[in-house]
Amino acid sequence: MSDLVTGTDLMTLAGRLYPICRSISGNGLRETLRILGGHAPLVLTEVPSGTQVYDWEVPLEWNIESARLTDPDGKVVVDFTDHNLHVVNYSEPVTGAYSLDELGPRLHTDARNPEWLPYKTSYYRRSWGFCLSQQTLQSLRKGTFGVDIKSRLEPGSLTFGEFVLPGASRREVLLFTHACHPSLANDNVSGLVVAAALAQWLSSRPRKYTWRLVFAPGTIGSLCWLRNNESHLHMVEHGLVIGLLGDSAPWTYKRSRRGCAPIDEIVPYVISAMNPQSRVIDFEPYGYDERQLCSPGFNLPVGRLTRSANDGYREYHSSADDLKLISADSLLQSLDALKAIAETVETNRRYINLSPKGEPRLGKRGLYGSMGGSSPARSELAMLWVLNQSDGEQSLLDIARRSGLDFEVIRTAANALANSKLLDERDDGSSSV
Amino acid sequence: MSDLVTGTDLMTLAGRLYPICRSISGNGLRETLRILGGHAPLVLTEVPSGTQVYDWEVPLEWNIESARLTDPDGKVVVDFTDHNLHVVNYSEPVTGAYSLDELGPRLHTDARNPEWLPYKTSYYRRSWGFCLSQQTLQSLRKGTFGVDIKSRLEPGSLTFGEFVLPGASRREVLLFTHACHPSLANDNVSGLVVAAALAQWLSSRPRKYTWRLVFAPGTIGSLCWLRNNESHLHMVEHGLVIGLLGDSAPWTYKRSRRGCAPIDEIVPYVISAMNPQSRVIDFEPYGYDERQLCSPGFNLPVGRLTRSANDGYREYHSSADDLKLISADSLLQSLDALKAIAETVETNRRYINLSPKGEPRLGKRGLYGSMGGSSPARSELAMLWVLNQSDGEQSLLDIARRSGLDFEVIRTAANALANSKLLDERDDGSSSV
Amino acid sequence: MSDLVTGTDLMTLAGRLYPICRSISGNGLRETLRILGGHAPLVLTEVPSGTQVYDWEVPLEWNIESARLTDPDGKVVVDFTDHNLHVVNYSEPVTGAYSLDELGPRLHTDARNPEWLPYKTSYYRRSWGFCLSQQTLQSLRKGTFGVDIKSRLEPGSLTFGEFVLPGASRREVLLFTHACHPSLANDNVSGLVVAAALAQWLSSRPRKYTWRLVFAPGTIGSLCWLRNNESHLHMVEHGLVIGLLGDSAPWTYKRSRRGCAPIDEIVPYVISAMNPQSRVIDFEPYGYDERQLCSPGFNLPVGRLTRSANDGYREYHSSADDLKLISADSLLQSLDALKAIAETVETNRRYINLSPKGEPRLGKRGLYGSMGGSSPARSELAMLWVLNQSDGEQSLLDIARRSGLDFEVIRTAANALANSKLLDERDDGSSSV
Repeated sequence: MSDLVTGTDLMTLAGRLYPICRSISGNGLRETLRILGGHAPLVLTEVPSGTQVYDWEVPLEWNIESARLTDPDGKVVVDFTDHNLHVVNYSEPVTGAYSLDELGPRLHTDARNPEWLPYKTSYYRRSWGFCLSQQTLQSLRKGTFGVDIKSRLEPGSLTFGEFVLPGASRREVLLFTHACHPSLANDNVSGLVVAAALAQWLSSRPRKYTWRLVFAPGTIGSLCWLRNNESHLHMVEHGLVIGLLGDSAPWTYKRSRRGCAPIDEIVPYVISAMNPQSRVIDFEPYGYDERQLCSPGFNLPVGRLTRSANDGYREYHSSADDLKLISADSLLQSLDALKAIAETVETNRRYINLSPKGEPRLGKRGLYGSMGGSSPARSELAMLWVLNQSDGEQSLLDIARRSGLDFEVIRTAANALANSKLLDERDDGSSSV
Repeated sequence: MSDLVTGTDLMTLAGRLYPICRSISGNGLRETLRILGGHAPLVLTEVPSGTQVYDWEVPLEWNIESARLTDPDGKVVVDFTDHNLHVVNYSEPVTGAYSLDELGPRLHTDARNPEWLPYKTSYYRRSWGFCLSQQTLQSLRKGTFGVDIKSRLEPGSLTFGEFVLPGASRREVLLFTHACHPSLANDNVSGLVVAAALAQWLSSRPRKYTWRLVFAPGTIGSLCWLRNNESHLHMVEHGLVIGLLGDSAPWTYKRSRRGCAPIDEIVPYVISAMNPQSRVIDFEPYGYDERQLCSPGFNLPVGRLTRSANDGYREYHSSADDLKLISADSLLQSLDALKAIAETVETNRRYINLSPKGEPRLGKRGLYGSMGGSSPARSELAMLWVLNQSDGEQSLLDIARRSGLDFEVIRTAANALANSKLLDERDDGSSSV
Repeated sequence: MSDLVTGTDLMTLAGRLYPICRSISGNGLRETLRILGGHAPLVLTEVPSGTQVYDWEVPLEWNIESARLTDPDGKVVVDFTDHNLHVVNYSEPVTGAYSLDELGPRLHTDARNPEWLPYKTSYYRRSWGFCLSQQTLQSLRKGTFGVDIKSRLEPGSLTFGEFVLPGASRREVLLFTHACHPSLANDNVSGLVVAAALAQWLSSRPRKYTWRLVFAPGTIGSLCWLRNNESHLHMVEHGLVIGLLGDSAPWTYKRSRRGCAPIDEIVPYVISAMNPQSRVIDFEPYGYDERQLCSPGFNLPVGRLTRSANDGYREYHSSADDLKLISADSLLQSLDALKAIAETVETNRRYINLSPKGEPRLGKRGLYGSMGGSSPARSELAMLWVLNQSDGEQSLLDIARRSGLDFEVIRTAANALANSKLLDERDDGSSSV
């Protein structure tokens, strides 16, 4: 498999994925997952059209070949070949002649940005339409226009991909990214690329947890995944929806619906250390697939990590969300943040002090300076903190936060103490396979 | 029954009640309740003198005919006919001649406001006395004064009135206002008038709760009511002591002793929306009848709504607390606030999402725009919030506060969702009769 | 026994204790406890060398007679007789000739304060060494130096002293001060002196609690005490490590590991009332004997009161921590603070209102003004607060804090109410002997 290590690697993959016309089903989605599978071994699942999924139903599969709008002079004024945002996603096939007035409600523009195309979809109501720039729209003369959309809405299936990395425990960390957006670079080619690179990195390391990375269409795709996995959702101990990771904004972490899940402690701690401008916002029921994962019937401990959030940037859901909006640096930093989050999730354990009555003698174990008189070194202080707080309730991150010492310093101290048999990891059920 | 709708209606009633010489028993109190009964069907309860009420005893009934102080020249210098604050409330009958020195401790003035009469009472120690202005006192010459107080302290009874409006549930909302103060307009003719108007308004509406409005003498009156109702105090789910609602100060809400009862959420939310200058203060054991209702043996979920609180205004418990201190506007706004509180109490329900796994499809129920691509409308966002939070624990007000959306918007969303069978009201035992 | 009442008394005792060469064992420690026993009847416990104490072992007993370093000219350049900090505490005996290079690692100075001697110890690794000023060190010429340390490291015992004052209850208040530092005035002659004076004061008063004051060597001494008392540690209801009470800094209270023990409410309340500049800091596992008392296996409700904390002052653990650093005023104020803490601990009771339904009639018991009309006096308000809150859960200090009234005013009100049989002290098990 090709390596996804440098920022250039990430941008190269982004460049391959960007032009594909993805949707919530169809061959563009499959092609995307096939390319990602070249970097990490994805297992694909096909869910047939018509399958009932909670309150929803998997729609017909959509594929498109071409879409053209011709002006009264026979000149092609809008062409899907130029940009796959030109057609309303899930447009039904249509051929015919229409006056400009008839076409009006089917021609979508972005009034505030006259050069851009908007991104429009109509998954659950049969319809068709074109997206074009305000400038193009204004240049159209009255007369009879030709519409020719060669698409297919047929029984087929919806596809999602999973990359599962077994760990020492069957308890899981779930990473979720939506894979349905056509040519939009930040939302969400960036998420696909960073998730694939993280999967590659995780695969080369020992793991306490089983890691599951899901690439699925938004909403209906996550619902399909939830339905297929409902019997073992209780194994999900931490989760994160990721996406919009390539633009230049600082990170935004959105808390899980629970608001106090371990992931809600871990991610803010990590990202604020990496970039003090990082933001943490409360859960709200609008957003990406956390809408489904955090619905009250599931209420999974799943937060969300993005740079710009939802429609928090001007280019959101428009043709200006292109490869120029994202950068190798931004993608790589986001990958680094996810690696640091993964390491913290993996190592944020709870310990039990095996010598809890008084302080154990660190000096005789070579863990402490032997000459009394001055203040303890930072590493010694970290050991005192870990010993004092390790009653099986406080995690290393809790101790780092209470002590004001870095998580890394606390973790190193815990390792040294565990090696000296002064600490035992608390068996929280995660270690059983 | 006469309507109490406009500010003028309220002021007219206030004008009728103001001159009556009320006390904690007697005919002035009965006459007041009779007039209020002309607007809302009050049920009166008489509690005989000598009845033991917890640590207290209902005192002899007090009635007064006249009270006069005559100077050495035979000129009447203080006359109960001029103002019923002129006599210490519950003065025993007395006729006799007294020197100015002997009279000294029985003549009460307001040293800081030389033109005003103070309000004085002596319910539980037999005594008598006059209240007069500092100016009048200073004009008195030495010599022999004539005292003639024609009052009666006899076995009788204490009276309180209740206006009960049955609702779908037997669970109750309790509104309490003291009815014992003589000619004092804000404290508490204003409370009597607004409570009567609210009773009228409530009687014309469907009700979830049973509403009970109590008009009783302060302290001993509320104790009598508590004693008579002790067996069903557990039915009181929300309560409010009201009074001092006619002056120009913004509202002050005083929390219940519990501090976290639902009423402690509802009233601050409503009044701060209506007037951002509204204040919320913590419970303290001094005040009005919340002293008894929130004593540790009852600890009812009862807060208090006033404008100026207790002695927080200069005219408090003096002859300057007259009809000029209160206004039609202030009374009407207070009535409006109580109506809004009542509506919130009645509609602040808890729901259960009947489609809790993932979001239900709002689009197919006509509740959501069908074309994807942009941010949701405010009403759609409200539906997402209600669905996400309706696990039977969060009330609509909780959801409004967490979402930052108006209670009204949230309530409308909940109604729409309930009509679409997506929500069920949580049965909290309130609906059983 | 001599009285410890005035600041001069305290400084006189400090002057007697300061020159003694204390350590974690030995005759200097015993002499110190003997002198303290002249003011309060201390019971001494000897723990033999080699005794296993949790993860530790009581070391050999150390005693020292003399220690001298002679320069190549035969001149004595460092002499234990001049200052007992000149020798590394627990130095083994040694006689011999050494070059300056060989001596190097055994000569300790305070680089930042060239005139001061540092304080060094080597309890658990056999070693020897001298402490001298940077100035003296720099004046030494190359050549052969004579070392003569006449000390003994022999099987013996470690000594700690306890002063126990039985109270009505066997439940205990524990006061702990370390007694092992040689000529250091603030750390910790000041603690010894103030603790002895407090013991004297407590012995003359009626006591609800049993008070136990422990004078012990740091770390190993507190571990010995813990081991000997492990079976009745559950009797410790409040505790305080004290020390460093003689310098001019304001008080610092360090919370117990629990963070919410009653002592964590009481001490901050008392010291901030006495000096608004007092500081309260969170628990951390570095410090004095709270390190052992608050280790997770014991987790006693023990806070710490000092002026300057640990190494928070420049003279810390150096020869400059001498009698000039402490003052009669500072010692006396610290004693006063501890007396006020003791009084609050003793009287901060929980009561149960015996007339909880409504307010009891205070007037008929002579506790309340009989004429209604104005605001209650401060003492009346305090009675209302105590009655309203006394449900057996709230302590008088809780009520003081909630009401904003002084603890003293609340306590006086509670006494008056208890005398009128309106309150009963809650039996929390403390009253059984």
